[in-house]
Amino acid sequence: MRATLLHAPRDIRLENVPDPELRTDTDAIVRVVASCICGSDLWPYRGITPTASPRRIGHEFVGVVEQVGSEVSTLRPGDFVIAPFGYSDNTCVNCRNGVHPSCEHGGFWGSEGQDGHLADGCQGETVRVPLADGTLVATPGEPTQELIPHLLTLSDVFPTGHHAAVSAGVTAGSTVVVVGDGAVGLSAVLAAKRLGAATVIAMSRHESRQNIARSFGADEIVAERGKEGVSAVLEVLGGIGADHVLECVGTAESMAQALRSARPGGRVGTVGAPNGGQLDLATMFRRNVGVAGGVAPVRHYLPELLRDVWDGTVTPGEVFDQTLPLDQVADGYQAMDERKAVKTMLTV
Amino acid sequence: MRATLLHAPRDIRLENVPDPELRTDTDAIVRVVASCICGSDLWPYRGITPTASPRRIGHEFVGVVEQVGSEVSTLRPGDFVIAPFGYSDNTCVNCRNGVHPSCEHGGFWGSEGQDGHLADGCQGETVRVPLADGTLVATPGEPTQELIPHLLTLSDVFPTGHHAAVSAGVTAGSTVVVVGDGAVGLSAVLAAKRLGAATVIAMSRHESRQNIARSFGADEIVAERGKEGVSAVLEVLGGIGADHVLECVGTAESMAQALRSARPGGRVGTVGAPNGGQLDLATMFRRNVGVAGGVAPVRHYLPELLRDVWDGTVTPGEVFDQTLPLDQVADGYQAMDERKAVKTMLTV
Repeated sequence: MRATLLHAPRDIRLENVPDPELRTDTDAIVRVVASCICGSDLWPYRGITPTASPRRIGHEFVGVVEQVGSEVSTLRPGDFVIAPFGYSDNTCVNCRNGVHPSCEHGGFWGSEGQDGHLADGCQGETVRVPLADGTLVATPGEPTQELIPHLLTLSDVFPTGHHAAVSAGVTAGSTVVVVGDGAVGLSAVLAAKRLGAATVIAMSRHESRQNIARSFGADEIVAERGKEGVSAVLEVLGGIGADHVLECVGTAESMAQALRSARPGGRVGTVGAPNGGQLDLATMFRRNVGVAGGVAPVRHYLPELLRDVWDGTVTPGEVFDQTLPLDQVADGYQAMDERKAVKTMLTV
Repeated sequence: MRATLLHAPRDIRLENVPDPELRTDTDAIVRVVASCICGSDLWPYRGITPTASPRRIGHEFVGVVEQVGSEVSTLRPGDFVIAPFGYSDNTCVNCRNGVHPSCEHGGFWGSEGQDGHLADGCQGETVRVPLADGTLVATPGEPTQELIPHLLTLSDVFPTGHHAAVSAGVTAGSTVVVVGDGAVGLSAVLAAKRLGAATVIAMSRHESRQNIARSFGADEIVAERGKEGVSAVLEVLGGIGADHVLECVGTAESMAQALRSARPGGRVGTVGAPNGGQLDLATMFRRNVGVAGGVAPVRHYLPELLRDVWDGTVTPGEVFDQTLPLDQVADGYQAMDERKAVKTMLTV
């Protein structure tokens, strides 16, 4: 089969690799229907995180089950499935607590797992899925072509935006600021509105992203950043800041922006992989602003969010503004690297 | 009247000062029945925070209303009242949000307020209370002598311990670790049990404090600190850590201990005035551990907690292990400084 390998910064290639095989009785083999490129894939692509030797990449996909191991009981060949950005047993204490990224037996795509075998990267034609019963969620039936991008967001960006909203404690009638207008930030806008937020302010300087944010329900757009951004937020929100702030970037600047945008007693939900280190506890303490969040437990949220995607209540796939065949994967990375695309879907 | 003044590190005196007078129509004058010394009073006492010139001190008291301004409507002379450690209008947007320490018109005892007048320190015979309607909570009747210490804890330590529990999201049936065995930490044990925690682990090396913790309902005591402390906590809690951790110290070490004691997806409620700077966001993020808390909104919690103190459901005054007349205030500071007393009550 063909799969994407990152060789070195900005050197990414679709290559022939051995077909995956069932390695344990709890595995499944899934033929990928669509995968996509994540903002976090750009870190190794740009060389911010090093690449020692060529490696598989990609952690979001939907597809059709081809084979299952003898102990797989909830899936059968032909099922259309969604794969979270990490695999998990869905039975250990951390999974039962809804914290699947801390699964005692889980792991992440594109590297060797606890079973001693490579878990394929997802930007390829076929993927071996460890712990298939715990990891994959089957759709209620065969989806239409139109539904594919929306289902694909359930691998990562929509549940991750939802995690920001849940971690910040968004409730019906509350006020929300979203810091970050990438695919996750835009998804967080949608998630906050889905949870009933009365006012959602999206912070975005890019017209195309502002348009998606509005389509996802954003009530106000703030284009300013830094102090001006905070002032603009306060002006919209009666001078005190937001009940909930969803931090979807991960830099020191975006976190500072998030903390300053929260009202006294407010909560920041953070899902931007932290790239700027530390939180100033004194600032939080003085104003009773809390911070929660982390690696999103996609598998935990999947059944709930899938219902709303399946019946068309939400259309999170609008974040995809570029679709390419898998053999143009390198072009997709380049487009996202140059911010010419918000998020690129790869069809197989 | 007589009031306590801090002159310089370890130089604290009870001195004659002018009697307080009504300064605005929303003031009340309250005769102090009992006040106490707070762990945070030891900071200036020890010279950790500087004292430029002699200043009033103390921020916890109960007493009897002597006089009220013309606009005070909920209190009358003779009422027995509890004063939170800060004053607030209880009507601004931040108070309505339950974040009284961020009151738009409030302030703290022992310094000049927004009204341009000194708010008396509370380790004295009489106190001018700004924003009396918003600040003071009257008891349902005249308390017995026995009830005074329990009521006095409602000024600060019991609601502060409760704030740690609320900020960490303690719910019935959950597991809790309390870091810190000062009066606030002990109060946090009581607060967590009151909220229905199934298992509360108090971290304490001192037998007298361990005994109070047990009396407040602690199910387990862990005397170890650092890595050994975390190991002991994990052993009690099935290997994964606590649902909720109440951080009641404020140092970098205690916060690190708290973060490591929380399970994946757990929450740290912090009320220890931060004295060690920064939170490592990456550590929190990887394990989805959130941190919330801050300066406790005592006034917000007072009516709820007063009910349980008044009817004897909880007896938080057990944290007082020393009672002195006000003219021995200097001895009280010395005893707490030398850790010979957990918390000292001063009777007037």
